[in-house]
Amino acid sequence: MKVLVINCGSSSLKYQIIDMDTQAVLCKGLVERIGIEGSVLTHKVPGKEDFVVQEEMKDHQRAVELVMAALVDPDHGVIKSLDEIDAIGHRVVHGGQKFAKSVLIDDEVKAALDKCTELAPLHNPANILGIKACEAVMPGKPNVGVFDTAFGMGMEPKAFMYALPTKYYEEYEVRRYGFHGQSHDFVSHRALDLCGGNENTKVIVCHLGNGASISASIGGKCVDSSMGLTPLEGLIMGTRSGNVDPGIMQFICHKEGLDIDGMLNVLNKKSGIFGLSGNISSDFRDVQKAADEGNEKAKIALDAYRYRVAKYIGSYAAAMNGVDVIVFTAGLGENDKLTRQAICDEYLGYLGVKVDPARNDVRGKETLISADDSKVKVYLIPTNEELKIAMDTVKIVSEL
Amino acid sequence: MKVLVINCGSSSLKYQIIDMDTQAVLCKGLVERIGIEGSVLTHKVPGKEDFVVQEEMKDHQRAVELVMAALVDPDHGVIKSLDEIDAIGHRVVHGGQKFAKSVLIDDEVKAALDKCTELAPLHNPANILGIKACEAVMPGKPNVGVFDTAFGMGMEPKAFMYALPTKYYEEYEVRRYGFHGQSHDFVSHRALDLCGGNENTKVIVCHLGNGASISASIGGKCVDSSMGLTPLEGLIMGTRSGNVDPGIMQFICHKEGLDIDGMLNVLNKKSGIFGLSGNISSDFRDVQKAADEGNEKAKIALDAYRYRVAKYIGSYAAAMNGVDVIVFTAGLGENDKLTRQAICDEYLGYLGVKVDPARNDVRGKETLISADDSKVKVYLIPTNEELKIAMDTVKIVSEL
Repeated sequence: MKVLVINCGSSSLKYQIIDMDTQAVLCKGLVERIGIEGSVLTHKVPGKEDFVVQEEMKDHQRAVELVMAALVDPDHGVIKSLDEIDAIGHRVVHGGQKFAKSVLIDDEVKAALDKCTELAPLHNPANILGIKACEAVMPGKPNVGVFDTAFGMGMEPKAFMYALPTKYYEEYEVRRYGFHGQSHDFVSHRALDLCGGNENTKVIVCHLGNGASISASIGGKCVDSSMGLTPLEGLIMGTRSGNVDPGIMQFICHKEGLDIDGMLNVLNKKSGIFGLSGNISSDFRDVQKAADEGNEKAKIALDAYRYRVAKYIGSYAAAMNGVDVIVFTAGLGENDKLTRQAICDEYLGYLGVKVDPARNDVRGKETLISADDSKVKVYLIPTNEELKIAMDTVKIVSEL
Repeated sequence: MKVLVINCGSSSLKYQIIDMDTQAVLCKGLVERIGIEGSVLTHKVPGKEDFVVQEEMKDHQRAVELVMAALVDPDHGVIKSLDEIDAIGHRVVHGGQKFAKSVLIDDEVKAALDKCTELAPLHNPANILGIKACEAVMPGKPNVGVFDTAFGMGMEPKAFMYALPTKYYEEYEVRRYGFHGQSHDFVSHRALDLCGGNENTKVIVCHLGNGASISASIGGKCVDSSMGLTPLEGLIMGTRSGNVDPGIMQFICHKEGLDIDGMLNVLNKKSGIFGLSGNISSDFRDVQKAADEGNEKAKIALDAYRYRVAKYIGSYAAAMNGVDVIVFTAGLGENDKLTRQAICDEYLGYLGVKVDPARNDVRGKETLISADDSKVKVYLIPTNEELKIAMDTVKIVSEL
């Protein structure tokens, strides 16, 4: 069974074809600058040179048409005909409270997704465009929506309710949703498989990428998640502040003559590791390099980053009254052994966490990095959101 | 040695005279509606009826004059002459970064306090008025400033820096300060005394009152504190939200047509237990009663409150890589055995915390409430911010 996975942004489209019998990625690609001058499609097939198509793409439908053409291209394609695609899985950022799991897309679902748009105004419209483009280009194929927010629907009210007037929840659905749901879901379940866990196994997943979030789950069911109504809350990220005292926003708005939109722009785009390091970079490697060269702000930025992650791990251990497994994933989590080691060594000894430095000397490969006598198992597990989307798509289509 | 302790608000003044040889409170009182029609002074002496003075008080100086008159009143006074007062200790809310400990007040200090006013615009001006009134009414007496923010000056940059552009710290001193400093300082040191602690003893103090905050300290030195630049951050409080996703503020501002000041007004005054319970009350007892009667929102509010406290305890255990002592203090912390028991039983078993229900059946009295085999000692320790102010005042005056 072959699944096409689509992840649409407002001017971009990422795709993969995954052969679910082997979980092999047959090809993947990226369309950039949709609707903008200089549109380009880059199509990658393992073992071959990149196939680049430079052609104006005025909308997502045209982008999907060109992707389809690449998929069946005599020289660069990986399938003979579009008939070989059994189903299409779409990443959808916000499913609101309606979608606690993946769903076959029909007109009713599309209408519901439109309603969620105000919760994710930058993302959901693009996701819907991608769905409609696939429907137009490949009529009759099943399209499945897989939601960033579905995993967070496992939370209880004590975790998802903010201490705000309840009107905001009742009228506007203001609550904690959690994002990176495909990643937290995939990685936490993979951890359960690896450790032989069961419905009582307590897992903390640290998804440390340019966006970063952390989740607590028991037996694969989400207990808490650091991102909230929006993907701004929680950990320190590349350019996002994560948690701040709301009082700071008022103070800075007045000091700098900003309105709320101006303030949020700073919190989303000029803060995080970037801001805290004194604008060195939003890329952790640059900040690490500066810290190694003695830059004090860079050192504080790294310290604060690790400290925040460690505090979240501690808080989620309390949330679940214990923790059995801690997992690091995503760009930094998979590739930065120093960060993993520092978080565990400096802060988590009291939980009985012991990371084995030799095992931890690894990048991007599924590995148990804790020592045999560690009371908590610590893993590096590469995330694979596309595979999770394809897995859910297969499941939904099999039930048709 | 007798110390007068003064805590000035914008239209109020609280005072105590403490005999520091015995730590006995000789009298205490409250002036309300200073500068407002209907000013009233209520003076309380242990074992006597309240002495109430109803007289217009146009400013804090007039209030201090009437307090002084009450102190030496032939029928209601506790001293024969103002000469018996050796020094005056003032609560000052914000000491900025300049004041990491209590200080003898002189012109230079007053000028520095003026500069901190923009960090605490509601509180510092009143504190300064109180100081100036005492100087005018009792010239020559030593006045000592004891700061809410001093305890938090123990934090390292990784704990006090927000992940914001560093400009905000450098130009405006935007950082985590922590408040309730007198309480956290007093209670954490008292805990060290009670448990025979040393410079490595790790203590978490839960100050759960109408305002609520939580601190982590090692050997009495602050490691972290939940309140930030302002007293809005952190735990769920009576009417204050504590932490929220900053993205919510933008969403609600647009939905409700609020500007940042309107939004902060909601977060400060209409949120917390009050908002989350569906406006039942900001008083925990009312919300508990409603929950006992089956009100679902009240139950969620209580659950969320405890959950937040537990998560902070967990995060601070990670911040210190362990915890030896947990203390509950302030109104709710001292008087609500259910809250103490629930936080420890539902969330903290993994730390080896065991609260003994019989020991915990106590109100407002210094008590070890953990079981003998608890790995973490848990105490109820009544806070005494006035005594802490008086103790610091004695210390400063003794060094003159």
